[in-house]
Amino acid sequence: SSAFDSKQHPHRRYNPLLDEWILVSPQRAKRPWQGQTEKSLEEKLPHYDPECYLCSGNVRVNGQRNPDYKGVYVFDNDFGSLLNEQVEFSEDHSDFFTIRPERGINRVICFSENHSLTLPEMEVKDIEKVVDTWQQQYEELGSQDFINHVQIFENKGQVMGCSNPHPHGQIWAQSSIPSAVVRTQENLRFYFEKTGRSLLEDYLKKELEADERIILENENFAALVPFWAVWPYETMIISKRKIGNILQFSEGEKRWFAEIIKDLTTKYDNLFETSFPYSAGIHQTPTDGLAHPEWHFHMHFYPPLLRSAEVKKFMVGYEMLAEAQRDITPEQSAEILKNLSTVHYKSRN
Amino acid sequence: SSAFDSKQHPHRRYNPLLDEWILVSPQRAKRPWQGQTEKSLEEKLPHYDPECYLCSGNVRVNGQRNPDYKGVYVFDNDFGSLLNEQVEFSEDHSDFFTIRPERGINRVICFSENHSLTLPEMEVKDIEKVVDTWQQQYEELGSQDFINHVQIFENKGQVMGCSNPHPHGQIWAQSSIPSAVVRTQENLRFYFEKTGRSLLEDYLKKELEADERIILENENFAALVPFWAVWPYETMIISKRKIGNILQFSEGEKRWFAEIIKDLTTKYDNLFETSFPYSAGIHQTPTDGLAHPEWHFHMHFYPPLLRSAEVKKFMVGYEMLAEAQRDITPEQSAEILKNLSTVHYKSRN
Ligand SMILES: O=P(O)(O)O[C@H]1O[C@H](CO)[C@@H](O)[C@H](O)[C@H]1O
Ligand SMILES: O=P(O)(O)O[C@H]1O[C@H](CO)[C@@H](O)[C@H](O)[C@H]1O
Repeated sequence: SSAFDSKQHPHRRYNPLLDEWILVSPQRAKRPWQGQTEKSLEEKLPHYDPECYLCSGNVRVNGQRNPDYKGVYVFDNDFGSLLNEQVEFSEDHSDFFTIRPERGINRVICFSENHSLTLPEMEVKDIEKVVDTWQQQYEELGSQDFINHVQIFENKGQVMGCSNPHPHGQIWAQSSIPSAVVRTQENLRFYFEKTGRSLLEDYLKKELEADERIILENENFAALVPFWAVWPYETMIISKRKIGNILQFSEGEKRWFAEIIKDLTTKYDNLFETSFPYSAGIHQTPTDGLAHPEWHFHMHFYPPLLRSAEVKKFMVGYEMLAEAQRDITPEQSAEILKNLSTVHYKSRN
Repeated sequence: SSAFDSKQHPHRRYNPLLDEWILVSPQRAKRPWQGQTEKSLEEKLPHYDPECYLCSGNVRVNGQRNPDYKGVYVFDNDFGSLLNEQVEFSEDHSDFFTIRPERGINRVICFSENHSLTLPEMEVKDIEKVVDTWQQQYEELGSQDFINHVQIFENKGQVMGCSNPHPHGQIWAQSSIPSAVVRTQENLRFYFEKTGRSLLEDYLKKELEADERIILENENFAALVPFWAVWPYETMIISKRKIGNILQFSEGEKRWFAEIIKDLTTKYDNLFETSFPYSAGIHQTPTDGLAHPEWHFHMHFYPPLLRSAEVKKFMVGYEMLAEAQRDITPEQSAEILKNLSTVHYKSRN
């Protein structure tokens, strides 16, 4: 029997944010793929598309007309998953049928009037305006009594269920703290209660020391492939300072956050020279009025592509029933992402 | 403000098996879909495909030749995620980099030599032979010292990452109990310790009483849309008797299990008159040699389709970062599935 080598041998890794394990199978990276492939659209998009319901001045499905906006534009989602309506509910006590009304607000944020752009192709100063808007929205929504959590996220690319290439993200703000956030918060809290320190501050220190999974580092943020990443090129942006939420950013932090988003998403696009699909979102303090000294601002990127613009990782069967599984190791992914340019492939030569 | 109505108002439901909540948005079922659509292959497949690496007598990628099998055929996966190799490991104690070698065995189970079949198109007696094989494999693999969990599952359809339409499933047997199974087991155990009864036995009783989410019921099993289902047409088969694992089936139970699998998957195919994709798998006692009085045999079906053979539900953005979300209610899905015929659409008239 040979000595364990994490580059060769199947193994499990522990995710302290979710308190669960994942399975890593480095030896499996070479299996042939004969399954479903994704369309990778490399058409050049126009700056304005008369058919796009997110473009400036166009009419949406519900008959409302967008203003002639420039830059960022926010509106209430026409088909929200949540409604801002208070309903009367008398708690029912049946054992297995536990149900509660949920109240909330869904918004759409257009990142730019330019239909053809995506975050990596925007200028840092324009990404800063998106960050401004995230701050405003977090504040405005979060300050309402019945909103205890504000989830800011982006689905990018058809393969991530995004139905419109116009650069945009979403906000789902609601009364309850969602399941995955509750789990993260519990684990942050256990650590904080035990040590008096932030789990992610300590983790980031170790990662910077190890320097095996760090992709980008600037004044205030680092981007890395977490030791326990499940998606092939999953990453996390972590603030160096222990910041609870986006309202606590200094001007410098805002600028460096915009900068690292641009650099990271540019590397993503450069990886397969395609507009790289992902779901990304921010985890930060709930807006429930409590102090939450355990929280540490971070942003997750979950991109599905595995080997090329056409072949994604399927989280199915074993993964749904048993546990997340990956082939390429986080260290290999980090190495690849680290070595990619921060100059976008479309703007080269 | 109006009174809460679970058919109209957004709400959350509690899943006692995973101890988490899901978001239900009944009002959103009507939103238009302009996003990615799936190819639905309705080509007629041959009984034997010379290019298929699972067909009788064909050569696989690694050069091995399948025997001229009839019925069920099992072999070790040529590109397993686990290896049956013991490696030397000295526990390392670094805080955030917790890693353990994982040993195991991956197998492929062809359900039939007939390339063109799927479970709903097979005869009950032939599905029984698949169940026989699951029993044998669970016993053979589970009795090995280093195997503490045997995950039996099937990925069906391209959209579920299945690369070959030849009817087949998989087994991943390994040293550790996977994350989702550990969570299920913990919740089954808490309930058992508190009440002395099986959570799923009590739950099934309540579901049979309520009769709102039951799709099929026979002598020994029921199939239902769980109150907390996340996928649009997610279902669960639960044994009426508290059975820990598949080896405890009586002859009758084996037959009725095969029967309910056939009926349920036939309804699935009839829903959109397409070969209905899903990931399905069995949850049962780990093979760690412990008693596990808390366990209750069940099988999950996680199908992705939402509105048609072409439009699936995307579990992205909010769902990845925050919590699972569904549009159509479990009661609506159950009603639709319940009313579908158990005669396969292809065999009609
Ligand atoms: O083993 P297969 O069928 O090649 O692969 C499929 O099922 C596996 C188990 O659910 C997944 O890990 C893969 O991502 C999926 O493509
Ligand atoms: O709101 P959209 O972009 O129409 O929809 C997309 O994102 C939502 C939030 O992650 C998901 O619930 C949907 O399944 C997905 O298709």
